[in-house]
Amino acid sequence: MSDIVVTLPDGSELSVPAGASVEDVAYEIGPGLGSDTVAGVVDGELVDKAAPVHDGARIEIVTDQSDEYLQVLRHSAAHVFAQALQRVFPEAKLAIGPPTEEGFYYDVAGVDIDEDDFPAIEREMADIVEADYEIRRLEVSREDALAEYEDNEYKTEILGEEAAGEDPVSVYEQDDWRDLCKGPHVDSTGEVGAFELLSISSAYWRGDEENDQLTRVYGTAFESESDLEEFLNMREQAAERDHRKIAREMDLFSIPTITGPGLPLYHPAGKTILSELEGYVDELNDAAGYGNVETPHVFRTELWEESGHYDNYEDDMFLFDVNDEEYGLKPMNCPGHATIFDQGSWSYRDLPIRYAEHGKVYRKEQRGELSGLSRTWAFTIDDGHLFVRPDQIEAEVRQVMDGIEQVLDTFDLDVSVDLATRPEKSVGSDEVWEQAERQLEAVLESSSLEWGIEPGDGAFYGPKIDFSFEDALGRSWDGPTVQLDFTMPERFDLTYTGEDNEEHRPVMIHRALYGSYERFFMVLIEHFAGRFPFWLAPEQVRVLPISDDNLGYAHRVKNELSEFRVEVEDRDMTIGRKIRAAHDDRVPYMVVVGGDEEEAETISVRDRFENERNDVPVSEFVEHLRGEVSEKTVKPDFVTDHDE
Amino acid sequence: MSDIVVTLPDGSELSVPAGASVEDVAYEIGPGLGSDTVAGVVDGELVDKAAPVHDGARIEIVTDQSDEYLQVLRHSAAHVFAQALQRVFPEAKLAIGPPTEEGFYYDVAGVDIDEDDFPAIEREMADIVEADYEIRRLEVSREDALAEYEDNEYKTEILGEEAAGEDPVSVYEQDDWRDLCKGPHVDSTGEVGAFELLSISSAYWRGDEENDQLTRVYGTAFESESDLEEFLNMREQAAERDHRKIAREMDLFSIPTITGPGLPLYHPAGKTILSELEGYVDELNDAAGYGNVETPHVFRTELWEESGHYDNYEDDMFLFDVNDEEYGLKPMNCPGHATIFDQGSWSYRDLPIRYAEHGKVYRKEQRGELSGLSRTWAFTIDDGHLFVRPDQIEAEVRQVMDGIEQVLDTFDLDVSVDLATRPEKSVGSDEVWEQAERQLEAVLESSSLEWGIEPGDGAFYGPKIDFSFEDALGRSWDGPTVQLDFTMPERFDLTYTGEDNEEHRPVMIHRALYGSYERFFMVLIEHFAGRFPFWLAPEQVRVLPISDDNLGYAHRVKNELSEFRVEVEDRDMTIGRKIRAAHDDRVPYMVVVGGDEEEAETISVRDRFENERNDVPVSEFVEHLRGEVSEKTVKPDFVTDHDE
Repeated sequence: MSDIVVTLPDGSELSVPAGASVEDVAYEIGPGLGSDTVAGVVDGELVDKAAPVHDGARIEIVTDQSDEYLQVLRHSAAHVFAQALQRVFPEAKLAIGPPTEEGFYYDVAGVDIDEDDFPAIEREMADIVEADYEIRRLEVSREDALAEYEDNEYKTEILGEEAAGEDPVSVYEQDDWRDLCKGPHVDSTGEVGAFELLSISSAYWRGDEENDQLTRVYGTAFESESDLEEFLNMREQAAERDHRKIAREMDLFSIPTITGPGLPLYHPAGKTILSELEGYVDELNDAAGYGNVETPHVFRTELWEESGHYDNYEDDMFLFDVNDEEYGLKPMNCPGHATIFDQGSWSYRDLPIRYAEHGKVYRKEQRGELSGLSRTWAFTIDDGHLFVRPDQIEAEVRQVMDGIEQVLDTFDLDVSVDLATRPEKSVGSDEVWEQAERQLEAVLESSSLEWGIEPGDGAFYGPKIDFSFEDALGRSWDGPTVQLDFTMPERFDLTYTGEDNEEHRPVMIHRALYGSYERFFMVLIEHFAGRFPFWLAPEQVRVLPISDDNLGYAHRVKNELSEFRVEVEDRDMTIGRKIRAAHDDRVPYMVVVGGDEEEAETISVRDRFENERNDVPVSEFVEHLRGEVSEKTVKPDFVTDHDE
Repeated sequence: MSDIVVTLPDGSELSVPAGASVEDVAYEIGPGLGSDTVAGVVDGELVDKAAPVHDGARIEIVTDQSDEYLQVLRHSAAHVFAQALQRVFPEAKLAIGPPTEEGFYYDVAGVDIDEDDFPAIEREMADIVEADYEIRRLEVSREDALAEYEDNEYKTEILGEEAAGEDPVSVYEQDDWRDLCKGPHVDSTGEVGAFELLSISSAYWRGDEENDQLTRVYGTAFESESDLEEFLNMREQAAERDHRKIAREMDLFSIPTITGPGLPLYHPAGKTILSELEGYVDELNDAAGYGNVETPHVFRTELWEESGHYDNYEDDMFLFDVNDEEYGLKPMNCPGHATIFDQGSWSYRDLPIRYAEHGKVYRKEQRGELSGLSRTWAFTIDDGHLFVRPDQIEAEVRQVMDGIEQVLDTFDLDVSVDLATRPEKSVGSDEVWEQAERQLEAVLESSSLEWGIEPGDGAFYGPKIDFSFEDALGRSWDGPTVQLDFTMPERFDLTYTGEDNEEHRPVMIHRALYGSYERFFMVLIEHFAGRFPFWLAPEQVRVLPISDDNLGYAHRVKNELSEFRVEVEDRDMTIGRKIRAAHDDRVPYMVVVGGDEEEAETISVRDRFENERNDVPVSEFVEHLRGEVSEKTVKPDFVTDHDE
């Protein structure tokens, strides 16, 4: 057999016999690596060490020292779980059990289990790990596999679809138990160092509401007990910060069953925060020369056909007929803004034209995917579209990036930043793409941001810079974005008159400083654990009279603070309980007033970090609070500065 | 034959023989009135003088001195038009031709005419009026009528529907021409003192888009040439103020065909005004203790079933299925607000709870009825809902009325105010209704408003106070409203815990200070003819350098005015043209700067009424403008005060 050539991570090339497996490649590199091999990454995809490599493949060898090792270990932990489950409930029918970012899950049918069953299953799992069974990869003929899974419609479907055409198929075996599986896995069950079953929920087979409802058991696994403990601690903290929990406690929003899924209702406290967030964007947009517009939520589908959304988004759109004509809720704001631009007649001197809108958009997500504000049917983008001359792209993108950096700075948020470049399916000439990518790169270079490149991840209409937030659980969420677009101006035949008196095509820039308000609100709730900066807090100050005798003075103090959102605590409680209640309600500042304060016409101020400062003239406090509002202070120093 | 008794406008009763007509009643009152009778009003309905009266009827006699006379005359003018049309175009097929508030129209088929044909038709009309033909009411057997209109499917349909069961039917004849018609009419064509054909448009038979498209010819008629002239003048002024025309000139909004009918897109200038209007309501709401909320535009129909809207509004709602479940765009905001209230648990001490939202609602109007902002599919209400204890109704309604009066005062708007009382179909006990009506009456009594009563015009769920605006054409539009509601709290099972520790039912108050933003915006555009008060104007100040030499100073002045919406005119034009352009663009203030001003560091200020004042220090102007913003001044006196 002739040789093939593969590329290693350091860029070097290696010649191996055709038909060689990942493990063969590892042995070719060195016998030590060969014997340590757990799995491989071929052209970016995690595969079993027995998987064959092809000519020109990029190969990485996964050992227990690799980042990917945890993923392999968790896949094996899913098998340990499945074996244990079938020991306790032999009737359990297995569907699929992949590793996830936080552990693994297994979807099962035919059993009625709940979290009370976890201890029994976990005992069996511990036995299986303790026994340190070898995990063996076997090849089974398609015919035998079909016979073996005759009673399991899920595995049968997998054999007919994902594994269509494979013969033999791979099966992983440990002890007397086995599962149809592509791998990879660790060598033995003993490598699963520490595990825990976490929760149970229901899931549709293949995520489709039309299909069977399965039971999904979530678990996690690590190499060591200490890693598991660290994870569980973080998870507990994250649960404390869960935006749905905090929203209930602070009465921020609700998504009642009767009103519909994925359609949040914002209560006064939540709407107060949203309005402050909107006001901040309005301020930035105003300074950057945007004009605000307002477009309908419903449009004729003719518009969506013209914009190309109908072709690309039809399945995700809410569509309906009115008098035999089709309409749709808008999945994006850009066609509306392009239509407004199209109403005007523009000269090169008018450009850039910048439109902004807190624009609600609608995307029909699967019901099972909806969760709090993280995934909704309706969400609002702090959307902006710029219509610019080609020579204005760089300056305009730079201005947008300045806005985004200011926002990130204001909220003290960490993000990852990526330049997403030309995908395989795209429109526009090489020259235009290269120039556009160079312009975005130049802007990134001149910023203070650390950034990476996601090759081929741009939109089909142009390259973009994407920002992602991490939430309390380390999950990543789409945030701000700047996108160049050469297509929409074509589709809508947008023009301006150049200095040469000819018609020219503007370039569109799509941008958002937050991304979606819903996502951003979620990230902020978790980021601040509901203890919002002063300018955002729904209730900013609570005045606590030490006794009812001071109630009159408390109200006078409230009046002096009337430019802020202030309440007086007038319930009949001890001052200690009043302070705890205000702390639990996440009020940034408590103002305590008793006889001494009343006599001296001062106040005592406690901040949300439980620092206290006495004998403060109200006017000084007002001055400070004005500063916190105008500075959008995240970490105030009114109390501590004085203490130091 | 036995006698029957009818009631006259002065309350007196009159006994007349059974079978008597309106004209008989008039002769019974006096022979002079009898011979002057043109028509009658029986139980509120305008009828022919030949119409029979029934026992217990309320009768008014219409003579050429009555308000209703013009309506009768215009109906006859429609006949004059129809006869003239058929003289010129014998093939014209007549559908219906009623009088309207501004004149009359006639829907016709079978002819292809446009406004160029008006002179020929008007010449024939003049001949017919000149000839002073007697207008005779004839009775024709149903059979003969059906034969006569055999070729006219519209009249045939009328005979089968509106006139079903009538035999004989009435026909009005003048000269050799006649028309199937219920009347009433004046005695002869000569009474049509002055007329004019106005415009032509298309209309669906019976307003239904599924039916034939007809040609609708609008005309008007008056007793005298001078009345007609006055009307045409007013009409011309109104056309100048037409909000659609001004919106195009000022680039306020558009309703492009591609995006859909009745779904306005607000451009930056229009959105600026809307935002200022919203901000004003926010201010008033904030001072009145409202909490802002935000509810989705889409809800499960389950909610609309619970609220009762589905039963009452289904045909007007935009409904669609998502995964076999029905959803609807919201026709009203109240169920969403009730749902938010329902999420909380409330004590008597928490009430009133007041929610406000600039809430978009959707009502599926006939496409032919849509026009600019006056009638749209989607419109935004400055909606508010209060959840109050019964003992709080009067104080809360009073507070709402104060807000409405403040709004009317701010915009210098005239309204008519009506207390709409219990309708025949209603829910709730007599006692509750009487008490509620008394409370609304007491509030009206203590206000400075002139108001009337519209008996039986309340909502089915409670009485209300309705405000209507008049537009430039004298048409009346729904404005602010305050409504008491005893039903929704029942339907949503809303409760609060009383002082007695029992569950109690709150009362809901629905209110809007503007009504719909779209309608209000339309009324304001026409009211101000686009020359908005300073605080609302999209471009508030334009700085006009006398020559290019002063451009630098112009920009320095602009910077000093940067808290306002200011532009510098930098086009190459004479100062005269610059002033005219700013005037045409309806900019409230022009600041003219030349060499003298630059040297003296002053400005010259021209207001929108073309008054000018020189040698003004910029700081003084800024102070004045701040005042106009905070006072929301409609008639500024910065220039004139100084002149006097």
